[in-house]
Amino acid sequence: MSSTDFLDNIDSQLDWQRGLYKDFHRQPELGLQEHKTSERIESELKDLGLESKHVSKTGLVTVIENGQGPTVLARADIDALPVSEDTGLDYSSTIDGVMHACGHDMHITALLGAVRLLNENLDAWSGTYIALFQPSEEDAAGAKAMLNDGLTSKIPKPDVAYAQHVMPLPTGTVNTKAGPVLSAGDSVKITVHGRGAHGSMPHLSVDPVVLAATIVLRLQTIVSREVEPGEFAVVTVGASNSGSKSNIIPDRAELLLNLRTYDMGVRDRIIASIERIVKAECQAAGSQKEPSFEYYDQFPLTDNDEDANEAVTKAFEDYFDDGVVQPANPATASEDFSEIPDAFEIPYAYWMIGSSDADKYKKAAEAGTVNTDIPANHSPQFAPVIDPTLEIATKAQVVAALSQLGS
Amino acid sequence: MSSTDFLDNIDSQLDWQRGLYKDFHRQPELGLQEHKTSERIESELKDLGLESKHVSKTGLVTVIENGQGPTVLARADIDALPVSEDTGLDYSSTIDGVMHACGHDMHITALLGAVRLLNENLDAWSGTYIALFQPSEEDAAGAKAMLNDGLTSKIPKPDVAYAQHVMPLPTGTVNTKAGPVLSAGDSVKITVHGRGAHGSMPHLSVDPVVLAATIVLRLQTIVSREVEPGEFAVVTVGASNSGSKSNIIPDRAELLLNLRTYDMGVRDRIIASIERIVKAECQAAGSQKEPSFEYYDQFPLTDNDEDANEAVTKAFEDYFDDGVVQPANPATASEDFSEIPDAFEIPYAYWMIGSSDADKYKKAAEAGTVNTDIPANHSPQFAPVIDPTLEIATKAQVVAALSQLGS
Amino acid sequence: MSSTDFLDNIDSQLDWQRGLYKDFHRQPELGLQEHKTSERIESELKDLGLESKHVSKTGLVTVIENGQGPTVLARADIDALPVSEDTGLDYSSTIDGVMHACGHDMHITALLGAVRLLNENLDAWSGTYIALFQPSEEDAAGAKAMLNDGLTSKIPKPDVAYAQHVMPLPTGTVNTKAGPVLSAGDSVKITVHGRGAHGSMPHLSVDPVVLAATIVLRLQTIVSREVEPGEFAVVTVGASNSGSKSNIIPDRAELLLNLRTYDMGVRDRIIASIERIVKAECQAAGSQKEPSFEYYDQFPLTDNDEDANEAVTKAFEDYFDDGVVQPANPATASEDFSEIPDAFEIPYAYWMIGSSDADKYKKAAEAGTVNTDIPANHSPQFAPVIDPTLEIATKAQVVAALSQLGS
Amino acid sequence: MSSTDFLDNIDSQLDWQRGLYKDFHRQPELGLQEHKTSERIESELKDLGLESKHVSKTGLVTVIENGQGPTVLARADIDALPVSEDTGLDYSSTIDGVMHACGHDMHITALLGAVRLLNENLDAWSGTYIALFQPSEEDAAGAKAMLNDGLTSKIPKPDVAYAQHVMPLPTGTVNTKAGPVLSAGDSVKITVHGRGAHGSMPHLSVDPVVLAATIVLRLQTIVSREVEPGEFAVVTVGASNSGSKSNIIPDRAELLLNLRTYDMGVRDRIIASIERIVKAECQAAGSQKEPSFEYYDQFPLTDNDEDANEAVTKAFEDYFDDGVVQPANPATASEDFSEIPDAFEIPYAYWMIGSSDADKYKKAAEAGTVNTDIPANHSPQFAPVIDPTLEIATKAQVVAALSQLGS
Repeated sequence: MSSTDFLDNIDSQLDWQRGLYKDFHRQPELGLQEHKTSERIESELKDLGLESKHVSKTGLVTVIENGQGPTVLARADIDALPVSEDTGLDYSSTIDGVMHACGHDMHITALLGAVRLLNENLDAWSGTYIALFQPSEEDAAGAKAMLNDGLTSKIPKPDVAYAQHVMPLPTGTVNTKAGPVLSAGDSVKITVHGRGAHGSMPHLSVDPVVLAATIVLRLQTIVSREVEPGEFAVVTVGASNSGSKSNIIPDRAELLLNLRTYDMGVRDRIIASIERIVKAECQAAGSQKEPSFEYYDQFPLTDNDEDANEAVTKAFEDYFDDGVVQPANPATASEDFSEIPDAFEIPYAYWMIGSSDADKYKKAAEAGTVNTDIPANHSPQFAPVIDPTLEIATKAQVVAALSQLGS
Repeated sequence: MSSTDFLDNIDSQLDWQRGLYKDFHRQPELGLQEHKTSERIESELKDLGLESKHVSKTGLVTVIENGQGPTVLARADIDALPVSEDTGLDYSSTIDGVMHACGHDMHITALLGAVRLLNENLDAWSGTYIALFQPSEEDAAGAKAMLNDGLTSKIPKPDVAYAQHVMPLPTGTVNTKAGPVLSAGDSVKITVHGRGAHGSMPHLSVDPVVLAATIVLRLQTIVSREVEPGEFAVVTVGASNSGSKSNIIPDRAELLLNLRTYDMGVRDRIIASIERIVKAECQAAGSQKEPSFEYYDQFPLTDNDEDANEAVTKAFEDYFDDGVVQPANPATASEDFSEIPDAFEIPYAYWMIGSSDADKYKKAAEAGTVNTDIPANHSPQFAPVIDPTLEIATKAQVVAALSQLGS
Repeated sequence: MSSTDFLDNIDSQLDWQRGLYKDFHRQPELGLQEHKTSERIESELKDLGLESKHVSKTGLVTVIENGQGPTVLARADIDALPVSEDTGLDYSSTIDGVMHACGHDMHITALLGAVRLLNENLDAWSGTYIALFQPSEEDAAGAKAMLNDGLTSKIPKPDVAYAQHVMPLPTGTVNTKAGPVLSAGDSVKITVHGRGAHGSMPHLSVDPVVLAATIVLRLQTIVSREVEPGEFAVVTVGASNSGSKSNIIPDRAELLLNLRTYDMGVRDRIIASIERIVKAECQAAGSQKEPSFEYYDQFPLTDNDEDANEAVTKAFEDYFDDGVVQPANPATASEDFSEIPDAFEIPYAYWMIGSSDADKYKKAAEAGTVNTDIPANHSPQFAPVIDPTLEIATKAQVVAALSQLGS
Repeated sequence: MSSTDFLDNIDSQLDWQRGLYKDFHRQPELGLQEHKTSERIESELKDLGLESKHVSKTGLVTVIENGQGPTVLARADIDALPVSEDTGLDYSSTIDGVMHACGHDMHITALLGAVRLLNENLDAWSGTYIALFQPSEEDAAGAKAMLNDGLTSKIPKPDVAYAQHVMPLPTGTVNTKAGPVLSAGDSVKITVHGRGAHGSMPHLSVDPVVLAATIVLRLQTIVSREVEPGEFAVVTVGASNSGSKSNIIPDRAELLLNLRTYDMGVRDRIIASIERIVKAECQAAGSQKEPSFEYYDQFPLTDNDEDANEAVTKAFEDYFDDGVVQPANPATASEDFSEIPDAFEIPYAYWMIGSSDADKYKKAAEAGTVNTDIPANHSPQFAPVIDPTLEIATKAQVVAALSQLGS
């Protein structure tokens, strides 16, 4: 039989995968706390006859050694988000305020499905396949955690690494691109200081609520006025919090910012502008204490290797029907996946799986309302269509692996 | 002996009062949760040989019937605030995030001291003295709670009611004023709706953080442009909260506003302006869902009875040394105290006790820096100077009572 | 005949006054350029048989010496404003962009009418009457100009000085108040510097249009947050101008501010806050050049002498029908009139003449829409109702004079 | 002799060109008023023995018919800007408030130099050369004016059209690019309505200065939040003007906006957002009159023909030294040049000439301070380095022409 024929067997395991997906979706866990998720993955692998080992507390790796040949690493991220689900699905999150709003449950399930297909069809390929389940992608802590726990010495060195991500694109598509596909990301927590007072005595206060508002608006001018038009740059204030009672003027405000760039010079200038603006607005407010800046969740650029991307793209085009494989646009999101191949000094490819209802997407595209009608990752309404997203994502992992390991 | 001579006995009980004050300060409790505070008051009264009864869960009343004469009610509020103490005092709050930042601990201790002095000197006066310990003044819920629990039928009808409050004025002063002394207050919780998205995809969002910032700034123009100059009006945004992670654009923001006015027409126009501004800013943002407005913590005007105020002012002037009694400025704060005399349809007087270090205050006044150098009520640094504040406040309650009950 | 009976003669001269008023209204002239206005006044006085002399280029004084008795000075201001009239009146301004939008035409006409009445009834009074027509009140330059031109040595020293002003109050009223009636006023021209660039290259600019906008909004917080609630304070940005073409980012912006206060300490703190805010916003913008602050048009407080005010109030009450004389509220406007009595070191009284349609005012007052339905001074729709405003204003000047000069 | 050898003759005419350039620079004229400029060009052409004809009042065309061969049109724009020169040059503008701040004086002078070279070396080429001097490029009125005056019927139909522009790039470079090089541009004049009042009576006004400020800041969020990151879009408020006196709150504000986009869908969404924001901010302000939107100066996309661009690029590379020809980045500016070839339905190429001091540019580039240290077009400091900018620009026009007309 030719190397991909066994993929037809997927029909017999899709029900198992659908159930798994819904279970993971019901039990989302925040980054570095994916204990039940990790246990379930371990247990499923065991059922398939595969040993796995923990690398970091909630990270997991299984290695299928299947004779001569290259070594391929495939990675799925497993953490969820502090979002309150609002999809109305019957398999909605059972955990208050936590949701798989970025589709990592789909990534886990697809990778488990790929592992099963490869493990049950060992004669169709040869080499080594490593399935890696990574915690805490959302805050760029998980790849680091696994590397800090000795990942590079605990598994064979791969020749190439793969990862995939569901996106608000039509289900039934796989989207690839050489070069930069995901931006660099930086987060910063800014604390500004006012002077607390009774709510009825504003003249005794330095109002941090007003101060935070002026900062939020001034920060908009970095992208609108300071960055060269057409240059990719995002400055998001994801959280602005100050005070807890109407009648107490608080004494501080906290802002959480997220930056995305494709150019490190642009990134550095944006950071300088943020600090300049925040410090000056504190002076405008008459703040008596310097603001503080705490940088965290710093994500690398995801920059697909030309050859690795070309190899998987060709394999996808050979296997999938016409129209499935699409050129991807660079996405505004960030990922810590690349830290793993970078630690091994190996090439990598990262592609995107469409997961939105294809008809709705088409209508929205025609109406020019994709942005408003198609819920995006991190939205409380983000809900990948299970079929055929799950099947395509599972097959994509296998097809990519076979591009290296197939006979 | 003349009617106020026994006040000299206060020396023998001041150590007890200082200890009590520090104990209350160490154990602050939020509104309607003042269980330990209420128990301690009850126990202290018992030690003095006085019965007390609960009116509402944490409200307490004790009545001293001492022959013929008028009935005087004196009220102390007993709740604390969700403020993290930052005074550095050795008797600082032991409860994380809760603090007696408005001096109610001083009010309790002074009233307990007055009760002891009056109770131990029954021959110096005649009539009935009611000491009322009221919960939850800060959110205008406590007076209502006691009235709802039948206060007017559970105690004798008073002829007059008194209350006092520590203020960032020089310790050693008692400050009185006829007519309006405290403003009407209204709180409103505003929820505005955006559209959540991944922090890197602002074009898929309607950003509620930016929306809240535009609202906070636009609201400033109500006082700066819409209210007639010189008219008393405060519009404070005490809390503005949106989002919890840097890389998730949230789908809503919540604002807590507090208004203070001395004129109901002004109040109504301000409320109309708030709603107009919030609705329009939501439209400017492209928000797809109407904002909501929830009104709460609505405080009455505190408007001292001319005669009641004149009587206590004269008594204070007769008893205290020159310079102690000062004319009060109307304060920007609000109180629910007046709901109690209003329910009985009786006159009332409300005065202010200076509690800031007198020398520091004088220097700050000369330097024009009172507002920045003297911590005000609700500030994490608010710390009444115990001496002579406690003594003056205790004596003020007794002197006021004696103005009606003295022989 | 009793001293005010001759006021009935006003009927015979009202048509002349109405024509004069409309002529002045059609020919408004800006401050220090009131050449035609000044000539017309001179010519009307000549027709009455009175000599007048110029003090400053466009200021004019006439003195009626009529025997023994005190000396009274009455002053009318004569300048117009750079406002484009939008009243639809058939006697609208014929000068593009210039309008008597503050009623000084009414002040001139009333004073000329009072002069005629007094001059034609010399037997009804004795003493000296000085009618002073002052230029350039709007920018506080006219009183200074007359004083600089030697006013105090060119006319007899008065015993008291009077001035009046039309206001958006019901016609048929005269409104008086002891003590402060008009605020102190200060203007400041602020220039902030950006960096010009082509409109399509914002990243090469420091955008002064955005900078000016942040300053305008931040300045609102002085009144809304920094001034004690209830304290009178106005910070108006009357003009904000930057740029002239859509596709050129300009290199500077100019703001013209006007402040009003009743307390010099408040005034000084506001000025400090303005400078703090502007400098800090320039830093937030990345401006490379310090902003400049140029103070001008600085108006004194108008603070009516207790006795002088009481005397005119009593005379008004004696003469006018019930309901005509009303207590005035302190007004937010400023005046340079007081510089003249201050130069002579004499007391003064300044009162207000209602000039709005009485029925409309009443309806608006009942509906609470005075502020939106009754055009105020400086509005393009400001249009005093001629009758009875003109008659009342004329008689008020005579009655005030007779309170000192009447037999 | 080979076809470009005669370019060495440029040495003998460069002094004449330098003098011409300085003369044009001293005498800038605004769009459609370029009378003296047009006369001078006509007179210089006459001195070269060439007739020219006016097409539109200030547009000029000269045609050199030189035997068989293709027809090439080269265009220079001739208008200046309302900018006050601040270069300190000894040949600075002598016209107050008007400046050649976009280098059109260099374009004229280079094209005149190219005409002279071609006209004096007729044996080096054959075909037809059309030099077109276009008025009023800055407001997109000049190309239209020439077309409206019958340009297409007044000159031979060209086979290709060329234009060039100086840019803040290192002098000594010519920069080319296929496809889109300049954005589409749209201007819009927005008038918003407040309610005028005396500056001391903000409560009687609807303040348009504050309204304009909120609009300017809200507009920033279109690019920062609504446009997809990385998509080219500029929303510049080039002018914001309201009021003229500090103590009059004006009744309207006027904003002049300029938009730049490379995608018509993005352009349409931005225009919709602008109108949504302005209308909603007017509501937030309580404005009683709808804002007005007036669109003007609408520039087409400049989209270089692939073949035409390749031909000139190759010719430049063949003629100039290594390093002179550089790939251009798409620029954020707009041009109306393309309306001329579009009217003839012919291909065109548009390239950029570096005009900044090369050493300064290099240092600034290394320090990452190009944007702040190198004055850009439309800046009061914009000053092309004459040598070798003028020589390179002249030769570029000749070399481009010879790519079609050379033997």
